[in-house]
Amino acid sequence: MKFFINETDQIVNEAINGLLTNPKLAKLDSFPEVRVVIRKDWDKSKVAIISGGGSGHEPAHAGFVGKGMLTAAICGDIFASPTVDAVLSAILAATGPKGCLLIIKNYTGDRLNFGLAAEQARALGLDVKTVTVDDDIALGNDVKKRGLAGTLFVHKIAGQLAEEGKSLDEIAVAAQKVIDSTASIGLSLTEVFHLGQETVSRLTDQQVELGLGIHGEPGIEVVAYAPADQLMALAIDKLEANLPGKNGRYAMIFNNMGSVSPIEMSLLVNSFSKTKLAEQIDYMIGPGALMSSINMSGFSVSVLLLNEEFEKALLAPAEPSSWQVQSFKKPATISSPKLPETMPYEASANSGVQKLIEEVAGLLVAIEKEINGLDAKVGDGDAGSTFALAGKRLQAVVAKLPLNDTGKLLLTLGRILAREAGGSSGVLLSILFTAAGNAYSKNPDLGKALVEGLQKVKDYGGAEKGDRTMIDALQPAFESLAKKESLAIAAQQARDGADNTKNIINTKFGRSSYLSEAVLRNIPDPGAEVIARVFEKIASL
Amino acid sequence: MKFFINETDQIVNEAINGLLTNPKLAKLDSFPEVRVVIRKDWDKSKVAIISGGGSGHEPAHAGFVGKGMLTAAICGDIFASPTVDAVLSAILAATGPKGCLLIIKNYTGDRLNFGLAAEQARALGLDVKTVTVDDDIALGNDVKKRGLAGTLFVHKIAGQLAEEGKSLDEIAVAAQKVIDSTASIGLSLTEVFHLGQETVSRLTDQQVELGLGIHGEPGIEVVAYAPADQLMALAIDKLEANLPGKNGRYAMIFNNMGSVSPIEMSLLVNSFSKTKLAEQIDYMIGPGALMSSINMSGFSVSVLLLNEEFEKALLAPAEPSSWQVQSFKKPATISSPKLPETMPYEASANSGVQKLIEEVAGLLVAIEKEINGLDAKVGDGDAGSTFALAGKRLQAVVAKLPLNDTGKLLLTLGRILAREAGGSSGVLLSILFTAAGNAYSKNPDLGKALVEGLQKVKDYGGAEKGDRTMIDALQPAFESLAKKESLAIAAQQARDGADNTKNIINTKFGRSSYLSEAVLRNIPDPGAEVIARVFEKIASL
Repeated sequence: MKFFINETDQIVNEAINGLLTNPKLAKLDSFPEVRVVIRKDWDKSKVAIISGGGSGHEPAHAGFVGKGMLTAAICGDIFASPTVDAVLSAILAATGPKGCLLIIKNYTGDRLNFGLAAEQARALGLDVKTVTVDDDIALGNDVKKRGLAGTLFVHKIAGQLAEEGKSLDEIAVAAQKVIDSTASIGLSLTEVFHLGQETVSRLTDQQVELGLGIHGEPGIEVVAYAPADQLMALAIDKLEANLPGKNGRYAMIFNNMGSVSPIEMSLLVNSFSKTKLAEQIDYMIGPGALMSSINMSGFSVSVLLLNEEFEKALLAPAEPSSWQVQSFKKPATISSPKLPETMPYEASANSGVQKLIEEVAGLLVAIEKEINGLDAKVGDGDAGSTFALAGKRLQAVVAKLPLNDTGKLLLTLGRILAREAGGSSGVLLSILFTAAGNAYSKNPDLGKALVEGLQKVKDYGGAEKGDRTMIDALQPAFESLAKKESLAIAAQQARDGADNTKNIINTKFGRSSYLSEAVLRNIPDPGAEVIARVFEKIASL
Repeated sequence: MKFFINETDQIVNEAINGLLTNPKLAKLDSFPEVRVVIRKDWDKSKVAIISGGGSGHEPAHAGFVGKGMLTAAICGDIFASPTVDAVLSAILAATGPKGCLLIIKNYTGDRLNFGLAAEQARALGLDVKTVTVDDDIALGNDVKKRGLAGTLFVHKIAGQLAEEGKSLDEIAVAAQKVIDSTASIGLSLTEVFHLGQETVSRLTDQQVELGLGIHGEPGIEVVAYAPADQLMALAIDKLEANLPGKNGRYAMIFNNMGSVSPIEMSLLVNSFSKTKLAEQIDYMIGPGALMSSINMSGFSVSVLLLNEEFEKALLAPAEPSSWQVQSFKKPATISSPKLPETMPYEASANSGVQKLIEEVAGLLVAIEKEINGLDAKVGDGDAGSTFALAGKRLQAVVAKLPLNDTGKLLLTLGRILAREAGGSSGVLLSILFTAAGNAYSKNPDLGKALVEGLQKVKDYGGAEKGDRTMIDALQPAFESLAKKESLAIAAQQARDGADNTKNIINTKFGRSSYLSEAVLRNIPDPGAEVIARVFEKIASL
């Protein structure tokens, strides 16, 4: 596997420096021996909220340092607890007369190192309290539980209470209550692939893991790979069996463990919304990477049983941008506008125009095979069929057209082509007629309207005259009409333009750009050829 | 590869429904035939800002619908333009008397379908303008350019100007100016792996692609895999050669193409910060997945040449949570607090205490091999060495200790153990003495202080009496001391506790939990045995 890294022993330091491009954060100058990220504006006037642990869980924890969440975070090596000295440095740097709360995830290394640092800080006269987060319910509620993404609920609520000026005692009590009201479960398609290491997966393509830790350790169960809805139901069943509270309202952290693509995360939210638990969710934080496990292709769901105090603190704004709360509801719909009819205008008679359309339509049908043959040499061989399809449709509807109103007729032709003709040429001709109709309704000059329509074809289609497309025939013919020249002259212009495409052998546009000179020479562009034939037919009437 | 999906033809619909758990959004009820996501609170009183395109770029575009950015987004199939009818539905649903701006990414399908829908909407009397984003500079500035993540600058600035009540003409002019001031480049370790499909990589482990599109098409160049700093420099060199403006100030979108892990994204920001261009960056949006390419393991960097109008509009708050701006600076440091000395207290003499420490230290050194031998049967064989190390350190410093002040002596022992003794037992004994010292300074009762210290060991360490640890010897001995019983009785309690660990064969705590009954039976816990020996030694003095 390939990774974006330099030296493996610098990954954590470099990632922290990347985070520190945010000028609201600072590091202690004992970095990198001691890795402490701290609010740059911190003045010790309130209770400090400190957390941390091994790295590899980005944005946790340093990414949650900021007003309203953490005051400081200590970053260990990948998946390894920071040292006692590092934790003590953070406590000493952040703690003022109001004291500090250490939020510890329930792993032996963290408990010991944070715990000892807390004792040492107390020996120095600081007021330090600790809470230990154990939101993991992979093995049920009674067994040794790990600290997972639910830890972020503690960061947010403790951080907000501190911001509001609450005392350390009040905050510690609330934080413990948050911990007692939180449960998390995770599921992953893959394990962690350590950066810069070759890793052989312990899972087959038919296995996934349920009940994850966040340090690459095996999940509690290996279960069979299944559709997303089933995997989600499996995880949520487990969570529901170990929910804090019953029939309560919950906030949810919807966590990407590292490498699930954004479209899959959205799809997983939809899978979740089909579970019974979804009806009890009022707020969602995520979906997004919040407590990752490097690059695990998995998710975790953490819930917090809400009360008024928690809800208020969760919804309060906080500086860390990774913390984003949305209300969680069923998808809402609003009425779709009625799309216009293909032929909204009243039919009107004009025998000349009718004959013209019938003749052109007949021509398009008649030359289908010939034009397909031409297209087979320089394209995919269906240009004749595309035009023939349009011709047949015109034959079917000609009597219902607003034949005696040029503007409406142009718009109607545009609509028919949009719905009935295939491929880019159908859309391009539809743009031509629709834009020409729009122009004609402002200034009833057919030649100029067609030139204006063609300009839109160029704008949206990207081709210019000389790019070996039907524009090479359309443009000179339309410009001739705009100059009030005769149909015969316009037809001659179209013919010259189409014939000239035989010599265009070096174009950067469209399919022609992929073909060799030898293939293209002496073959006209099929679209331009059709246009020339149409003009010749009209001029002959 | 495994993916979180159900049916492949439902991926887009399900992902949109996941997004729509956000109650500020709604879908048109023609969903899923027509996939339009629209602001639920939209009242058509301002200019509508509409974008969209193929899916697979989440959160773009539907994830950027919200006050201050898009009014509505149209979602095609994966990497495929939405139909003309879908775009027209969005225009009709969102556009009021102030008109609408369509923001189109420069791909033929999008240009044609959005373009035709715009023409049709104009035919219905709506005021529609379009802009086409071509921020890609992979092939330089003069060649056909694609629309990449720079499109989001247009969403944000047009969205903000609309929110401020600007006219369609003003917004369209500004949007075009944004497009002319934006450039993007990307680099990826992998191509796109289509969800639900087996994919063989076109790249080896030694190849990466520079100059990406966002639809799985090959990059402009295959370059050699290299450290992150070098790959970043390669991409940024290309960007700098095609920068809009010179010596300007820029905002930057730092985009995850889908599956780069969060720690790698932070590391890449650090790589970027080493380039010359970094000095010209004032703001960063990201790092995060903003315009993804399903699960490409790559990044893109987009820059916008700032002016006063753009800067103000970029920084204005917007509802979509994926849009988060931070100032971009060099990492800041603040002074690290001085850590306390290991032995901050003045030495004081007390011959009885000195003898006690010397005797205990001598014992710990003397029994090193014996305890290691015991530990080899039930652990990793180093318990004796850990205690001996502490013993040697005590021998070295005993004369410098505050021997005549019990509280300070306990705290100093805690500090020495934290710095000098290894392993969890070192940290645990350090916690014991530090917490006991803290307790003694409040209430000078040694027995009670030791009991209180032991409670912290249990709290942080997680073991209880009966878990086959040194607590089994410490607890009865300390409780005996707290009851003012004689040292002889306390020593007997420690001995009984240690001996009793030979019968504890079924524990859920620590290493013992992995060992079989046959291995554990009749072997005492080595830590508990050391404690019993220490108490026996003290009682014998």
